[in-house]
Amino acid sequence: MKLSTLLEKAAEKQNVTVAVAAAEDPEVLDAISQAVNRDFGSFILFGDKDKLDVLLSEKYTNLLDNPFVCIRHAKSDKEAAELSVKAVHAQQAAVLMKGNLQTAVLLKEVLNKDYGLRTGNVLSHVAVFETPRFERLIFVTDAAMNIEPGLEQKAQIVQNAVSIATGIGIHCPRVAPIAAVEVVNPAMQATADAALLTQMNRRGQIKGCILDGPLALDNAISMEAAKHKGLKSETAGQADILLMPNIETGNVLYKSLIYFAGAKVGGIIAGAEAPIVLTSRSDSAESKLYSIALAICSATNH
Amino acid sequence: MKLSTLLEKAAEKQNVTVAVAAAEDPEVLDAISQAVNRDFGSFILFGDKDKLDVLLSEKYTNLLDNPFVCIRHAKSDKEAAELSVKAVHAQQAAVLMKGNLQTAVLLKEVLNKDYGLRTGNVLSHVAVFETPRFERLIFVTDAAMNIEPGLEQKAQIVQNAVSIATGIGIHCPRVAPIAAVEVVNPAMQATADAALLTQMNRRGQIKGCILDGPLALDNAISMEAAKHKGLKSETAGQADILLMPNIETGNVLYKSLIYFAGAKVGGIIAGAEAPIVLTSRSDSAESKLYSIALAICSATNH
Repeated sequence: MKLSTLLEKAAEKQNVTVAVAAAEDPEVLDAISQAVNRDFGSFILFGDKDKLDVLLSEKYTNLLDNPFVCIRHAKSDKEAAELSVKAVHAQQAAVLMKGNLQTAVLLKEVLNKDYGLRTGNVLSHVAVFETPRFERLIFVTDAAMNIEPGLEQKAQIVQNAVSIATGIGIHCPRVAPIAAVEVVNPAMQATADAALLTQMNRRGQIKGCILDGPLALDNAISMEAAKHKGLKSETAGQADILLMPNIETGNVLYKSLIYFAGAKVGGIIAGAEAPIVLTSRSDSAESKLYSIALAICSATNH
Repeated sequence: MKLSTLLEKAAEKQNVTVAVAAAEDPEVLDAISQAVNRDFGSFILFGDKDKLDVLLSEKYTNLLDNPFVCIRHAKSDKEAAELSVKAVHAQQAAVLMKGNLQTAVLLKEVLNKDYGLRTGNVLSHVAVFETPRFERLIFVTDAAMNIEPGLEQKAQIVQNAVSIATGIGIHCPRVAPIAAVEVVNPAMQATADAALLTQMNRRGQIKGCILDGPLALDNAISMEAAKHKGLKSETAGQADILLMPNIETGNVLYKSLIYFAGAKVGGIIAGAEAPIVLTSRSDSAESKLYSIALAICSATNH
């Protein structure tokens, strides 16, 4: 599968509404404009109405008087965050998207006990990559949210990623908990956690996937490497989801794929009542579009 | 600089002898045969003389009756390791190379208190990559030896890599201690260590390089990313050496560069009296040759 397939799948979905917090941002509007051009998503733009009107009439005219776009005034970032989260909570929208405001301001509303989007699960970042040398999409989690997850957190991070993968049509994905080696070494927490997660999967504590580790990256993704090593594993060489042991490892893999391998990526936050699109300024316009598409494809699971 | 430059530099060096422990291994002999064809290095092959004679006469005839190759019989792997280490200790050789024996058997001799190659420094793995998208060589350390180095160990790991980089002509290399973010966050040890290492470099406790961090990978290697982020740093966007916070991060970057980005690599163990070539079966023949060349180029520093 390619990431362009995500755009097609997103266009096939009907009635998925995205609530955008503080939408008065050219880069965010640019991505939304592209999504609307490709016929996916309806958008509720929460933010400064005057600024939004100017931006739309100057540059994003396809969003003006469009039945799939509506504007809701908010007098501050905090209010934009609150209103957008409440819209998702009230099921008026199925995806939340961050605009031009601090991530912390938005997440505070997401975690609000009265109207927030908590499910009791860990929130985690799920990125999906199209790489030049592999046919299949490869999921990397967690490159951005959880610093040093423990065993229970890792189990939930896997479950979040499995849910997203399933949402785009990858049924029973293969999950590789990544370490530096393939053997259990008590001095390396990543290897011990990987072994524990493997047995948790066999006992039905982690569902909807085939998980086997520890695996180093080469033996997780490359069948040739796994065969050379003589590994007997249902995951080795064919992993769809790479569970990272800590944020540094995830972040370095994410950036390495973009900057060294020229990969394409879309990413969302999973684990809340609805997928959350949290793009950053450094993401390309293409990447922002893939992220919206990934969220829309994942939205039915919530 | 390209890795092919290393082969040229290695050929310019005179009289660098490599002591090979348990050389009776087709893959190791293949790399040595290529090195000899390219006119670099002299090799003392410690190992089972009968097996070596057969292998050389069957396949590696350029190593037979060659003034740059001699065979020394050892009746066991342990003895081959001991004799090769002693040869380096006695300055009959300036590089140590692992052949067909367990890494642990060789390292035990390296660490022997009487005739080993200890310097009091941490031993660390230094890999140098040629990547398709960047002009300069990029060093990654430590992807293979130190599991979770503390601050002092990290300082020595940097010093080891600086020594290798300098040895191949990269004077005063720029070092980026890698983390997931660019700010100091006490909840992320990698960021705190990176800030401490930066100040240690400014105070002259880490020499021969310009070190500045924490930096995420994108802002360490890409000037465009660093400018986009508005970072003011002498290292951002131009790092030669990437210091990894832990073995998982280093290992994943190493494997990602090979398998996703199609990079070429050479690697050695630094920090002992002489560079140690520790190739593994999964390394390509080309990679083994680059590793020998890197060790030979680095040998004069010891």
